[in-house]
Amino acid sequence: MTQPPSSPTAERAPLMPGISDPHDLLHAAAHRLASQFSGHFTEETIERYLFESYTALKRTAKVTAYLPTLAETFAHDRLTALAQSRGAIAHDVPEVLLVCVQNAGRSQMAAALIEHHAQGRIHVRSAGSRPAEEIEPAVLEVMTEIGLDLSAQFPKPLTDDVVRAADVVITMGCGDACPIYPGKTYLDWALEDPDHKSPAEVRAIRDEIDTRARALVDELTNS
Amino acid sequence: MTQPPSSPTAERAPLMPGISDPHDLLHAAAHRLASQFSGHFTEETIERYLFESYTALKRTAKVTAYLPTLAETFAHDRLTALAQSRGAIAHDVPEVLLVCVQNAGRSQMAAALIEHHAQGRIHVRSAGSRPAEEIEPAVLEVMTEIGLDLSAQFPKPLTDDVVRAADVVITMGCGDACPIYPGKTYLDWALEDPDHKSPAEVRAIRDEIDTRARALVDELTNS
Repeated sequence: MTQPPSSPTAERAPLMPGISDPHDLLHAAAHRLASQFSGHFTEETIERYLFESYTALKRTAKVTAYLPTLAETFAHDRLTALAQSRGAIAHDVPEVLLVCVQNAGRSQMAAALIEHHAQGRIHVRSAGSRPAEEIEPAVLEVMTEIGLDLSAQFPKPLTDDVVRAADVVITMGCGDACPIYPGKTYLDWALEDPDHKSPAEVRAIRDEIDTRARALVDELTNS
Repeated sequence: MTQPPSSPTAERAPLMPGISDPHDLLHAAAHRLASQFSGHFTEETIERYLFESYTALKRTAKVTAYLPTLAETFAHDRLTALAQSRGAIAHDVPEVLLVCVQNAGRSQMAAALIEHHAQGRIHVRSAGSRPAEEIEPAVLEVMTEIGLDLSAQFPKPLTDDVVRAADVVITMGCGDACPIYPGKTYLDWALEDPDHKSPAEVRAIRDEIDTRARALVDELTNS
Protein backbone atom coordinates (compact mmCIF):
# COMPACT_ATOMS: atom_id res chain seq x y z
CA MET A 1 0.00 0.00 0.00
CA THR A 2 1.39 3.40 -0.84
CA GLN A 3 0.85 6.29 1.52
CA PRO A 4 -2.51 7.78 0.64
CA PRO A 5 -2.73 11.37 -0.56
CA SER A 6 -3.67 13.89 2.08
CA SER A 7 -4.36 16.84 -0.20
CA PRO A 8 -7.96 18.07 -0.04
CA THR A 9 -7.86 18.35 -3.85
CA ALA A 10 -7.07 14.66 -4.23
CA GLU A 11 -9.25 12.76 -6.66
CA ARG A 12 -12.41 11.44 -5.04
CA ALA A 13 -12.03 7.81 -4.02
CA PRO A 14 -14.69 5.30 -5.05
CA LEU A 15 -17.46 5.04 -2.48
CA MET A 16 -18.13 1.82 -0.65
CA PRO A 17 -20.92 -0.22 -2.25
CA GLY A 18 -24.37 0.82 -1.08
CA ILE A 19 -23.28 4.20 0.28
CA SER A 20 -24.43 7.21 -1.69
CA ASP A 21 -22.30 10.32 -1.63
CA PRO A 22 -23.86 12.85 0.77
CA HIS A 23 -21.32 15.61 0.16
CA ASP A 24 -23.33 17.54 -2.40
CA LEU A 25 -26.43 17.48 -0.18
CA LEU A 26 -24.45 18.57 2.87
CA HIS A 27 -22.75 21.43 1.05
CA ALA A 28 -26.13 22.69 -0.20
CA ALA A 29 -27.47 22.42 3.38
CA ALA A 30 -24.49 24.40 4.71
CA HIS A 31 -25.30 27.21 2.29
CA ARG A 32 -28.93 27.29 3.42
CA LEU A 33 -27.98 27.34 7.11
CA ALA A 34 -25.38 30.04 6.48
CA SER A 35 -28.02 32.29 4.98
CA GLN A 36 -30.58 31.49 7.73
CA PHE A 37 -28.10 32.19 10.55
CA SER A 38 -26.19 34.98 8.85
CA GLY A 39 -25.21 37.55 11.48
CA HIS A 40 -25.61 35.08 14.33
CA PHE A 41 -22.76 32.64 13.72
CA THR A 42 -19.59 32.42 11.68
CA GLU A 43 -19.56 30.12 8.65
CA GLU A 44 -17.05 28.00 10.55
CA THR A 45 -19.51 27.38 13.38
CA ILE A 46 -22.33 26.57 10.96
CA GLU A 47 -20.20 24.18 8.90
CA ARG A 48 -18.97 22.42 12.06
CA TYR A 49 -22.50 22.10 13.45
CA LEU A 50 -23.79 20.56 10.23
CA PHE A 51 -20.99 18.04 9.71
CA GLU A 52 -20.76 17.04 13.37
CA SER A 53 -24.57 16.63 13.47
CA TYR A 54 -24.34 14.42 10.40
CA THR A 55 -21.59 12.24 11.87
CA ALA A 56 -23.39 12.00 15.23
CA LEU A 57 -26.59 10.74 13.55
CA LYS A 58 -24.67 8.44 11.19
CA ARG A 59 -23.07 6.68 14.16
CA THR A 60 -26.40 5.41 15.47
CA ALA A 61 -29.16 5.72 12.83
CA LYS A 62 -30.60 2.60 11.24
CA VAL A 63 -31.79 4.14 7.98
CA THR A 64 -29.10 6.38 6.55
CA ALA A 65 -30.78 7.37 3.27
CA TYR A 66 -32.20 10.63 4.63
CA LEU A 67 -29.32 11.50 6.92
CA PRO A 68 -28.22 14.72 5.17
CA THR A 69 -31.79 16.02 5.52
CA LEU A 70 -32.07 14.94 9.16
CA ALA A 71 -28.63 16.42 9.87
CA GLU A 72 -29.77 19.77 8.44
CA THR A 73 -32.90 19.69 10.65
CA PHE A 74 -30.83 18.73 13.71
CA ALA A 75 -28.14 21.37 13.04
CA HIS A 76 -30.82 24.03 12.43
CA ASP A 77 -32.45 23.24 15.76
CA ARG A 78 -29.13 23.19 17.61
CA LEU A 79 -28.04 26.54 16.13
CA THR A 80 -31.44 28.01 17.02
CA ALA A 81 -31.03 26.74 20.59
CA LEU A 82 -27.54 28.23 20.83
CA ALA A 83 -28.73 31.59 19.51
CA GLN A 84 -31.65 31.53 21.98
CA SER A 85 -29.32 30.79 24.88
CA ARG A 86 -27.33 33.90 23.94
CA GLY A 87 -30.43 36.05 23.61
CA ALA A 88 -29.82 36.53 19.88
CA ILE A 89 -33.01 34.77 18.79
CA ALA A 90 -36.32 35.43 20.53
CA HIS A 91 -37.24 33.13 23.36
CA ASP A 92 -40.91 34.00 23.75
CA VAL A 93 -42.30 30.87 25.37
CA PRO A 94 -40.87 28.46 27.96
CA GLU A 95 -38.40 25.99 26.45
CA VAL A 96 -38.73 22.42 27.75
CA LEU A 97 -36.09 19.77 27.08
CA LEU A 98 -37.00 16.08 27.51
CA VAL A 99 -34.09 13.66 27.96
CA CYS A 100 -34.28 9.88 28.18
CA VAL A 101 -31.78 7.18 27.26
CA GLN A 102 -32.71 6.28 23.69
CA ASN A 103 -34.83 9.29 22.56
CA ALA A 104 -36.99 6.59 21.00
CA GLY A 105 -39.91 6.32 23.44
CA ARG A 106 -40.43 8.29 26.64
CA SER A 107 -38.86 11.61 25.64
CA GLN A 108 -40.48 11.48 22.18
CA MET A 109 -43.94 10.80 23.64
CA ALA A 110 -43.50 13.53 26.26
CA ALA A 111 -42.35 16.06 23.64
CA ALA A 112 -45.32 15.32 21.38
CA LEU A 113 -47.86 15.41 24.23
CA ILE A 114 -46.54 18.65 25.76
CA GLU A 115 -46.47 20.27 22.33
CA HIS A 116 -50.01 19.07 21.65
CA HIS A 117 -51.46 20.39 24.91
CA ALA A 118 -49.48 23.63 24.91
CA GLN A 119 -50.69 24.70 21.46
CA GLY A 120 -47.78 27.03 20.84
CA ARG A 121 -47.43 28.31 24.42
CA ILE A 122 -44.38 26.08 25.12
CA HIS A 123 -41.57 24.99 22.82
CA VAL A 124 -40.16 21.48 23.29
CA ARG A 125 -37.01 19.62 22.34
CA SER A 126 -35.98 16.05 23.09
CA ALA A 127 -32.72 14.06 23.16
CA GLY A 128 -31.17 10.84 24.45
CA SER A 129 -28.00 9.92 26.28
CA ARG A 130 -27.56 6.86 24.04
CA PRO A 131 -29.80 7.40 21.02
CA ALA A 132 -31.44 4.32 19.49
CA GLU A 133 -31.43 3.35 15.81
CA GLU A 134 -35.04 4.46 15.32
CA ILE A 135 -38.22 5.43 17.20
CA GLU A 136 -39.82 2.37 18.84
CA PRO A 137 -42.47 1.05 16.42
CA ALA A 138 -44.87 0.38 19.33
CA VAL A 139 -44.49 4.01 20.40
CA LEU A 140 -45.30 5.28 16.91
CA GLU A 141 -48.38 3.04 16.98
CA VAL A 142 -49.83 4.10 20.33
CA MET A 143 -49.25 7.77 19.50
CA THR A 144 -51.01 7.36 16.15
CA GLU A 145 -53.97 5.91 18.07
CA ILE A 146 -54.45 9.29 19.77
CA GLY A 147 -53.88 11.26 16.57
CA LEU A 148 -50.23 12.25 17.05
CA ASP A 149 -47.88 11.45 14.16
CA LEU A 150 -44.26 10.93 15.22
CA SER A 151 -43.06 9.53 11.90
CA ALA A 152 -40.93 12.60 11.10
CA GLN A 153 -39.10 12.39 14.45
CA PHE A 154 -35.75 10.67 14.96
CA PRO A 155 -33.48 9.79 17.91
CA LYS A 156 -30.89 12.50 18.59
CA PRO A 157 -27.94 12.61 21.01
CA LEU A 158 -28.09 15.08 23.87
CA THR A 159 -25.98 18.16 23.07
CA ASP A 160 -24.80 21.12 25.14
CA ASP A 161 -26.66 23.72 23.07
CA VAL A 162 -30.17 22.38 23.72
CA VAL A 163 -29.47 22.19 27.46
CA ARG A 164 -28.36 25.84 27.43
CA ALA A 165 -31.56 26.90 25.66
CA ALA A 166 -33.87 25.09 28.08
CA ASP A 167 -35.80 26.66 30.96
CA VAL A 168 -37.01 23.28 32.19
CA VAL A 169 -35.07 20.02 31.74
CA ILE A 170 -36.98 16.80 32.39
CA THR A 171 -34.90 13.64 32.65
CA MET A 172 -36.38 10.14 32.39
CA GLY A 173 -34.09 7.26 33.27
CA CYS A 174 -30.85 8.76 31.94
CA GLY A 175 -29.14 9.23 35.31
CA ASP A 176 -26.85 12.26 35.50
CA ALA A 177 -26.08 12.35 31.75
CA CYS A 178 -27.37 15.91 31.45
CA PRO A 179 -25.10 18.89 32.25
CA ILE A 180 -26.35 21.11 35.08
CA TYR A 181 -26.56 24.84 34.36
CA PRO A 182 -27.70 27.54 36.75
CA GLY A 183 -31.06 29.23 36.30
CA LYS A 184 -32.88 26.15 35.01
CA THR A 185 -35.48 23.89 36.60
CA TYR A 186 -34.46 20.22 36.58
CA LEU A 187 -37.17 17.61 37.06
CA ASP A 188 -36.96 13.83 36.97
CA TRP A 189 -39.93 11.77 35.86
CA ALA A 190 -39.83 8.14 37.03
CA LEU A 191 -41.40 6.25 34.12
CA GLU A 192 -41.27 2.71 32.81
CA ASP A 193 -39.14 2.28 29.68
CA PRO A 194 -41.45 1.25 26.78
CA ASP A 195 -38.63 -0.74 25.14
CA HIS A 196 -39.75 -4.38 24.59
CA LYS A 197 -43.11 -3.79 26.32
CA SER A 198 -46.53 -5.00 25.08
CA PRO A 199 -48.85 -2.54 23.31
CA ALA A 200 -51.05 -2.40 26.45
CA GLU A 201 -48.03 -1.55 28.60
CA VAL A 202 -46.83 1.12 26.15
CA ARG A 203 -50.34 2.59 26.15
CA ALA A 204 -50.25 2.80 29.96
CA ILE A 205 -46.87 4.59 29.83
CA ARG A 206 -48.27 6.97 27.20
CA ASP A 207 -51.26 7.77 29.44
CA GLU A 208 -49.02 8.32 32.48
CA ILE A 209 -46.90 10.74 30.41
CA ASP A 210 -50.06 12.45 29.17
CA THR A 211 -51.18 13.15 32.75
CA ARG A 212 -47.78 14.64 33.59
CA ALA A 213 -47.68 16.61 30.34
CA ARG A 214 -51.08 18.22 31.01
CA ALA A 215 -50.02 19.18 34.55
CA LEU A 216 -46.73 20.65 33.30
CA VAL A 217 -48.48 22.68 30.61
CA ASP A 218 -50.92 24.03 33.22
CA GLU A 219 -48.09 25.00 35.54
CA LEU A 220 -45.92 26.64 32.88
CA THR A 221 -48.72 28.54 31.16
CA ASN A 222 -50.73 29.68 34.20
CA SER A 223 -47.94 31.14 36.26
CA MET B 1 -44.38 26.15 39.66
CA THR B 2 -43.48 29.61 38.44
CA GLN B 3 -41.81 30.06 35.10
CA PRO B 4 -38.09 29.68 35.71
CA PRO B 5 -35.74 32.57 34.98
CA SER B 6 -34.03 32.41 31.61
CA SER B 7 -31.49 35.16 32.14
CA PRO B 8 -27.88 33.96 32.01
CA THR B 9 -27.20 36.14 35.04
CA ALA B 10 -29.79 34.28 37.10
CA GLU B 11 -28.64 33.05 40.48
CA ARG B 12 -26.97 29.65 40.30
CA ALA B 13 -29.40 26.87 41.22
CA PRO B 14 -28.33 24.29 43.79
CA LEU B 15 -26.60 21.32 42.19
CA MET B 16 -28.09 17.87 42.38
CA PRO B 17 -26.58 15.81 45.20
CA GLY B 18 -23.34 14.08 44.23
CA ILE B 19 -22.66 16.28 41.20
CA SER B 20 -19.76 18.68 41.54
CA ASP B 21 -19.87 21.89 39.57
CA PRO B 22 -17.60 21.57 36.52
CA HIS B 23 -18.13 25.11 35.23
CA ASP B 24 -15.01 26.64 36.73
CA LEU B 25 -12.83 23.83 35.39
CA LEU B 26 -14.39 24.09 31.93
CA HIS B 27 -13.98 27.85 31.75
CA ALA B 28 -10.31 27.53 32.71
CA ALA B 29 -9.91 24.84 30.04
CA ALA B 30 -11.55 27.10 27.44
CA HIS B 31 -8.97 29.80 28.19
CA ARG B 32 -6.09 27.34 27.80
CA LEU B 33 -7.46 26.02 24.48
CA ALA B 34 -8.07 29.57 23.24
CA SER B 35 -4.44 30.44 23.80
CA GLN B 36 -3.19 27.15 22.28
CA PHE B 37 -5.32 27.52 19.13
CA SER B 38 -5.13 31.29 18.88
CA GLY B 39 -4.99 32.25 15.19
CA HIS B 40 -6.43 28.91 14.08
CA PHE B 41 -9.99 29.08 15.37
CA THR B 42 -12.41 31.64 16.71
CA GLU B 43 -13.20 31.63 20.43
CA GLU B 44 -16.72 30.57 19.46
CA THR B 45 -15.45 27.41 17.78
CA ILE B 46 -13.16 26.58 20.70
CA GLU B 47 -15.88 27.11 23.29
CA ARG B 48 -18.35 25.00 21.31
CA TYR B 49 -15.81 22.19 20.86
CA LEU B 50 -15.04 22.08 24.57
CA PHE B 51 -18.62 22.12 25.83
CA GLU B 52 -19.94 19.72 23.20
CA SER B 53 -17.02 17.37 23.93
CA TYR B 54 -17.89 17.54 27.61
CA THR B 55 -21.58 16.78 27.01
CA ALA B 56 -20.76 13.96 24.58
CA LEU B 57 -18.50 12.25 27.15
CA LYS B 58 -20.93 12.90 30.01
CA ARG B 59 -23.69 11.06 28.12
CA THR B 60 -21.81 7.76 28.18
CA ALA B 61 -18.94 7.83 30.71
CA LYS B 62 -19.16 5.73 33.86
CA VAL B 63 -16.83 7.79 36.03
CA THR B 64 -17.61 11.47 35.69
CA ALA B 65 -15.17 12.90 38.25
CA TYR B 66 -12.47 13.67 35.68
CA LEU B 67 -14.76 14.65 32.84
CA PRO B 68 -13.68 18.30 32.53
CA THR B 69 -10.07 17.10 32.14
CA LEU B 70 -11.01 14.38 29.65
CA ALA B 71 -13.18 16.87 27.75
CA GLU B 72 -10.22 19.25 27.46
CA THR B 73 -8.01 16.42 26.12
CA PHE B 74 -10.74 15.33 23.69
CA ALA B 75 -11.46 18.90 22.49
CA HIS B 76 -7.71 19.58 22.09
CA ASP B 77 -7.32 16.50 19.92
CA ARG B 78 -10.40 17.31 17.83
CA LEU B 79 -9.27 20.91 17.24
CA THR B 80 -5.81 19.64 16.29
CA ALA B 81 -7.40 17.21 13.82
CA LEU B 82 -9.54 19.95 12.31
CA ALA B 83 -6.55 22.26 11.93
CA GLN B 84 -4.55 19.43 10.33
CA SER B 85 -7.33 18.70 7.87
CA ARG B 86 -7.17 22.35 6.77
CA GLY B 87 -3.40 22.33 6.47
CA ALA B 88 -3.07 24.86 9.30
CA ILE B 89 -1.17 22.51 11.63
CA ALA B 90 1.64 20.31 10.36
CA HIS B 91 0.74 16.84 9.26
CA ASP B 92 4.18 15.28 9.06
CA VAL B 93 3.41 11.58 9.47
CA PRO B 94 0.51 9.40 8.25
CA GLU B 95 -2.61 9.80 10.39
CA VAL B 96 -4.45 6.55 11.14
CA LEU B 97 -7.96 6.50 12.62
CA LEU B 98 -9.24 3.30 14.26
CA VAL B 99 -13.01 2.99 14.64
CA CYS B 100 -14.91 0.20 16.39
CA VAL B 101 -18.29 0.17 18.14
CA GLN B 102 -17.42 0.86 21.78
CA ASN B 103 -13.88 2.34 21.55
CA ALA B 104 -13.28 0.14 24.59
CA GLY B 105 -11.38 -2.82 23.12
CA ARG B 106 -10.40 -3.37 19.49
CA SER B 107 -9.77 0.22 18.41
CA GLN B 108 -7.96 1.01 21.67
CA MET B 109 -5.67 -2.03 21.33
CA ALA B 110 -5.00 -1.26 17.65
CA ALA B 111 -4.19 2.37 18.41
CA ALA B 112 -1.75 1.43 21.18
CA LEU B 113 -0.05 -1.29 19.12
CA ILE B 114 0.35 0.83 15.97
CA GLU B 115 1.71 3.69 18.05
CA HIS B 116 4.10 1.33 19.80
CA HIS B 117 5.49 -0.19 16.60
CA ALA B 118 5.57 3.07 14.65
CA GLN B 119 7.71 4.89 17.22
CA GLY B 120 6.63 8.33 16.11
CA ARG B 121 6.44 7.58 12.37
CA ILE B 122 2.62 7.34 12.42
CA HIS B 123 0.06 9.26 14.48
CA VAL B 124 -3.06 7.41 15.64
CA ARG B 125 -6.52 8.31 16.87
CA SER B 126 -9.40 6.05 17.87
CA ALA B 127 -13.17 6.40 18.30
CA GLY B 128 -16.38 4.38 18.57
CA SER B 129 -19.80 4.54 16.98
CA ARG B 130 -21.45 3.82 20.36
CA PRO B 131 -18.81 4.51 23.01
CA ALA B 132 -18.85 2.32 26.12
CA GLU B 133 -18.78 3.50 29.73
CA GLU B 134 -15.11 2.58 30.15
CA ILE B 135 -12.25 0.60 28.58
CA GLU B 136 -12.83 -3.15 29.01
CA PRO B 137 -10.93 -4.24 32.14
CA ALA B 138 -9.78 -7.45 30.39
CA VAL B 139 -8.33 -5.31 27.59
CA LEU B 140 -6.41 -3.13 30.04
CA GLU B 141 -5.07 -6.32 31.59
CA VAL B 142 -3.83 -8.07 28.44
CA MET B 143 -2.23 -4.85 27.21
CA THR B 144 -0.44 -4.37 30.53
CA GLU B 145 0.94 -7.91 30.09
CA ILE B 146 2.86 -6.71 27.04
CA GLY B 147 3.96 -3.47 28.67
CA LEU B 148 1.37 -1.09 27.17
CA ASP B 149 -0.54 1.08 29.65
CA LEU B 150 -4.00 2.11 28.44
CA SER B 151 -5.20 3.47 31.77
CA ALA B 152 -5.20 7.08 30.57
CA GLN B 153 -7.38 6.25 27.54
CA PHE B 154 -11.17 6.61 27.45
CA PRO B 155 -13.99 5.74 25.03
CA LYS B 156 -14.81 8.62 22.67
CA PRO B 157 -17.59 9.04 20.10
CA LEU B 158 -16.61 9.21 16.44
CA THR B 159 -16.58 12.82 15.24
CA ASP B 160 -16.29 14.42 11.81
CA ASP B 161 -13.04 16.23 12.53
CA VAL B 162 -10.94 13.12 13.23
CA VAL B 163 -12.20 11.49 10.03
CA ARG B 164 -11.17 14.57 8.04
CA ALA B 165 -7.68 14.49 9.52
CA ALA B 166 -7.12 10.80 8.72
CA ASP B 167 -5.14 9.39 5.81
CA VAL B 168 -6.15 5.82 6.67
CA VAL B 169 -9.42 4.87 8.38
CA ILE B 170 -9.65 1.33 9.75
CA THR B 171 -13.11 0.16 10.80
CA MET B 172 -13.71 -2.86 13.03
CA GLY B 173 -17.30 -4.04 13.36
CA CYS B 174 -18.97 -0.63 13.22
CA GLY B 175 -20.66 -1.09 9.83
CA ASP B 176 -20.96 2.10 7.78
CA ALA B 177 -20.98 4.45 10.79
CA CYS B 178 -17.95 6.34 9.46
CA PRO B 179 -18.38 9.17 6.92
CA ILE B 180 -16.61 8.59 3.60
CA TYR B 181 -14.33 11.36 2.37
CA PRO B 182 -12.31 11.38 -0.84
CA GLY B 183 -8.54 10.94 -0.79
CA LYS B 184 -8.47 8.55 2.16
CA THR B 185 -7.80 4.83 2.37
CA TYR B 186 -10.59 2.89 4.08
CA LEU B 187 -9.81 -0.57 5.42
CA ASP B 188 -12.02 -2.96 7.36
CA TRP B 189 -10.45 -5.39 9.83
CA ALA B 190 -12.66 -8.40 10.65
CA LEU B 191 -11.90 -9.05 14.32
CA GLU B 192 -13.69 -10.72 17.19
CA ASP B 193 -15.18 -8.31 19.73
CA PRO B 194 -13.35 -8.77 23.09
CA ASP B 195 -16.49 -7.80 25.02
CA HIS B 196 -17.42 -10.61 27.48
CA LYS B 197 -14.59 -12.85 26.27
CA SER B 198 -12.20 -14.87 28.47
CA PRO B 199 -8.67 -13.55 29.10
CA ALA B 200 -7.27 -16.20 26.72
CA GLU B 201 -9.67 -15.10 23.97
CA VAL B 202 -8.86 -11.41 24.53
CA ARG B 203 -5.15 -12.29 24.35
CA ALA B 204 -5.73 -14.02 20.99
CA ILE B 205 -7.54 -10.93 19.66
CA ARG B 206 -4.70 -8.74 20.93
CA ASP B 207 -2.16 -10.90 19.08
CA GLU B 208 -4.20 -10.87 15.87
CA ILE B 209 -4.35 -7.06 16.08
CA ASP B 210 -0.61 -6.97 16.77
CA THR B 211 0.12 -8.90 13.56
CA ARG B 212 -2.04 -6.51 11.55
CA ALA B 213 -0.55 -3.46 13.30
CA ARG B 214 3.02 -4.53 12.45
CA ALA B 215 2.08 -5.09 8.80
CA LEU B 216 0.34 -1.71 8.59
CA VAL B 217 3.31 0.09 10.12
CA ASP B 218 5.62 -1.61 7.61
CA GLU B 219 3.42 -0.62 4.69
CA LEU B 220 2.93 2.99 5.77
CA THR B 221 6.55 3.66 6.71
CA ASN B 222 8.30 1.83 3.86
CA SER B 223 6.38 3.21 0.93
